Amino acid sequence: MTNAQISLIQIDNYGPWTTTPEPRREVDLQTLQSRLYADISQLVGNREGYAFFARFDNLITVTNGLNRDAHKLIQESVGNRYPVTASISIGTGPSPVEALGTASEQLQDAGSAQDSERTEILSGTPVSEADRTEMDLQIAHFDVNDATSKYTDKLNEFDTFINIEQGYAELMQYMRRAHDSLSFFVGGDNVIAVCSGMRESDYRDTIKHVNETVDVELKVGVGRAATAQQAGMGAKHELERCRENGSVVEIGW
Amino acid sequence: MTNAQISLIQIDNYGPWTTTPEPRREVDLQTLQSRLYADISQLVGNREGYAFFARFDNLITVTNGLNRDAHKLIQESVGNRYPVTASISIGTGPSPVEALGTASEQLQDAGSAQDSERTEILSGTPVSEADRTEMDLQIAHFDVNDATSKYTDKLNEFDTFINIEQGYAELMQYMRRAHDSLSFFVGGDNVIAVCSGMRESDYRDTIKHVNETVDVELKVGVGRAATAQQAGMGAKHELERCRENGSVVEIGW
Amino acid sequence: MTNAQISLIQIDNYGPWTTTPEPRREVDLQTLQSRLYADISQLVGNREGYAFFARFDNLITVTNGLNRDAHKLIQESVGNRYPVTASISIGTGPSPVEALGTASEQLQDAGSAQDSERTEILSGTPVSEADRTEMDLQIAHFDVNDATSKYTDKLNEFDTFINIEQGYAELMQYMRRAHDSLSFFVGGDNVIAVCSGMRESDYRDTIKHVNETVDVELKVGVGRAATAQQAGMGAKHELERCRENGSVVEIGW
Amino acid sequence: MTNAQISLIQIDNYGPWTTTPEPRREVDLQTLQSRLYADISQLVGNREGYAFFARFDNLITVTNGLNRDAHKLIQESVGNRYPVTASISIGTGPSPVEALGTASEQLQDAGSAQDSERTEILSGTPVSEADRTEMDLQIAHFDVNDATSKYTDKLNEFDTFINIEQGYAELMQYMRRAHDSLSFFVGGDNVIAVCSGMRESDYRDTIKHVNETVDVELKVGVGRAATAQQAGMGAKHELERCRENGSVVEIGW
Repeated sequence: MTNAQISLIQIDNYGPWTTTPEPRREVDLQTLQSRLYADISQLVGNREGYAFFARFDNLITVTNGLNRDAHKLIQESVGNRYPVTASISIGTGPSPVEALGTASEQLQDAGSAQDSERTEILSGTPVSEADRTEMDLQIAHFDVNDATSKYTDKLNEFDTFINIEQGYAELMQYMRRAHDSLSFFVGGDNVIAVCSGMRESDYRDTIKHVNETVDVELKVGVGRAATAQQAGMGAKHELERCRENGSVVEIGW
Repeated sequence: MTNAQISLIQIDNYGPWTTTPEPRREVDLQTLQSRLYADISQLVGNREGYAFFARFDNLITVTNGLNRDAHKLIQESVGNRYPVTASISIGTGPSPVEALGTASEQLQDAGSAQDSERTEILSGTPVSEADRTEMDLQIAHFDVNDATSKYTDKLNEFDTFINIEQGYAELMQYMRRAHDSLSFFVGGDNVIAVCSGMRESDYRDTIKHVNETVDVELKVGVGRAATAQQAGMGAKHELERCRENGSVVEIGW
Repeated sequence: MTNAQISLIQIDNYGPWTTTPEPRREVDLQTLQSRLYADISQLVGNREGYAFFARFDNLITVTNGLNRDAHKLIQESVGNRYPVTASISIGTGPSPVEALGTASEQLQDAGSAQDSERTEILSGTPVSEADRTEMDLQIAHFDVNDATSKYTDKLNEFDTFINIEQGYAELMQYMRRAHDSLSFFVGGDNVIAVCSGMRESDYRDTIKHVNETVDVELKVGVGRAATAQQAGMGAKHELERCRENGSVVEIGW
Repeated sequence: MTNAQISLIQIDNYGPWTTTPEPRREVDLQTLQSRLYADISQLVGNREGYAFFARFDNLITVTNGLNRDAHKLIQESVGNRYPVTASISIGTGPSPVEALGTASEQLQDAGSAQDSERTEILSGTPVSEADRTEMDLQIAHFDVNDATSKYTDKLNEFDTFINIEQGYAELMQYMRRAHDSLSFFVGGDNVIAVCSGMRESDYRDTIKHVNETVDVELKVGVGRAATAQQAGMGAKHELERCRENGSVVEIGW
């Protein structure tokens, strides 16, 4: 079991905004979205959290250690610097999926993502300081074996992208269905997953499944800690051990 | 037939850099990558091109109208403002896939993506001004029907994400295999494709295939012009017509 | 008396870098400098500090409440995302000038700003938590009376700029010499000062001096708190009171 | 004589926005302002123009070579990505001061900078392509002799700042009054001036005046070209020659 705190950050009424009064230039939308993600990444990340871009208009963030005020400040900072506003919903639970489920429901209960009246919602309750432990988060960092030599240096870059993408699509589904875990592509050939209490055999099973289904070979390092930053850095170091040892799974505890 | 100019922008030796001398904080990597993408989006986009983040360390850009000097300036601007450098390879061809194939090969011929000696390559030749026409690019803008009411407002956000992602994964593969076209997720429920000379029936066929395979319903607007910005803006207006008319495919010519 | 903690953030060996191997494009230098400032503003600001751009390659920041680890993270974040690195020196003292004096000396003792071997210095000791009080910082927010109607809407914009700039140049000197306080232009017609223990009569004297010397009319709101953000927000509210009451000095305690 | 094209970019109704409904956090204002400047620097700069932050809410830009559409795109890009909008006024004239005078008047005629109804004005006419020459702009790049050894490595950083600032304040006034030229501090110990047709003796006279008045020693390189980027890069190279030759003024033609 883990004790995940997942905050859903949703740009308010974003779809309609992008085409009102007429479609806005794509270059500006892409710039806005990626800058907003970079800012949230910094705002969350410098408090030891992790932010994932996901669909860009709905960012999924791991916020163990951020209290309600920290969330409020993020919301205010977005409102002060962007032409759009954001709603934030904080969910907690023994697995990341349950935590995000709670966060999603709270926001849905407040109104539609495209309701122009529903703006800057801030809902949910963080894990209390008293309930936090060094085991609250389990983070896994996957990458693709020999991606550069097998794909990047050989194939049309789009075909490389397809391979990485199919690996990710299969991994994200399997991890969610079989292990209540949330996996995010983070660039290159890397995927970071916020996991429920998975054991080494669960990771081996997952890697085998992806290999058999879409022929993409993964390896993974796993860390555990009170915050995403610490658990994630642990996972990175374990992944380095995979590289050194030629192993497929390394667990940091 | 089209006359696509596709430039591959590859961060030099990025993988090793992210873990040297030891793994760098994920928040900084995510910020660097998304800011770099935002900058390239502006640099390319304000010359009427389109930039897609793809894998973030390998960006695929549509650069019809950008000459070699414009590419050189992008390369210089990255080198002046980031701790990493970028190589750029320009490919052209009757289909986007062929253009990107050429671009990829030129870079691969120059050395590995993880060769620390291979930096700031600039290769390839843009389409000459004399050969450019108003028909050089065909761009399609897809979105998912009723994504907000069917997914965002109902499901756990990760399950919404899975639905959108599976739709995209199937679309990107099919468009590439069956139609030599490059499709990119651009946030929310939107996918933009740089197409070869596809006809209305090809789009209907593609949408049907995705619907039957992964049960995601798409619609699409299509534009054609000398630059990505113009073709893409045409596609957006056609997509608006789909919304107004309840149609599935609208072609802007 | 106050208990200021001032951190000097100096880009390492920046001058030589801007012209090596030959002069870099000014647009990129300006972009780098202003983005670096924006990032440091966020990194410091979201921990309740204030960052001033000053000369851009030497940023002066008010960091009461930021411990050594927070400074280290800022340094690491800059190093991970920019082509340059930064040294940071933390000074404390009963007046801002003394605090900055200490910070400056520590950095100078470590080597020249243009010594290519002196990089990523982190020196100095923050105020201990036990010694912090609600009176540690006094912040004043000045603006120019009727700047829009008297200048912006009437003069050539450069002449407006000259007026504001002369007012600032006089204010910064006088506040430093007469009151050991550090004043920074922050855009528009606004100046924010980190003050030693100044009384209402000191502010009246300062405003009178600037008016008589360069004929620029100022007003000021002043706040006091444990952090720059709280003292500064207090000052802003007091300045609003000046606007409402037509007063010249408002003190928030 | 020169043929300057100066565009004034003014954030619409910015002052009131910063305090409505109540004062916004300074960290967010500073971030917004410096990011907006960085973006405009890129948008103008990558078309060979120069942008100066000036008062941050009123940016002065040198736009020879940018037509009306390029200005419109800048305006649209700001509107699409910021919570504020911008008005832009293009002025031309034989000296930079006259050009900016025209630009300022056009904007003032359209309404007050704090008129909430006056938004996104775009006025003025660029220099026609037919009238452009290789002599249209003269740009001077000043720096302070031995600033690092005389100030940065010796003084309290604020006292260094005061010295640089006093030098700049005197230079900006004298250049404007005596030579119809616009000078901008650009960080470190650097000032860039957009000049009218100044001769070598004018520069010597200016440097002497500043030295005698505020005891700051300057040197300067000067370039001339059709665009700010080219003239400015010429000036930088001339300034390098000053460093090599120990000279005070170098003129690049």
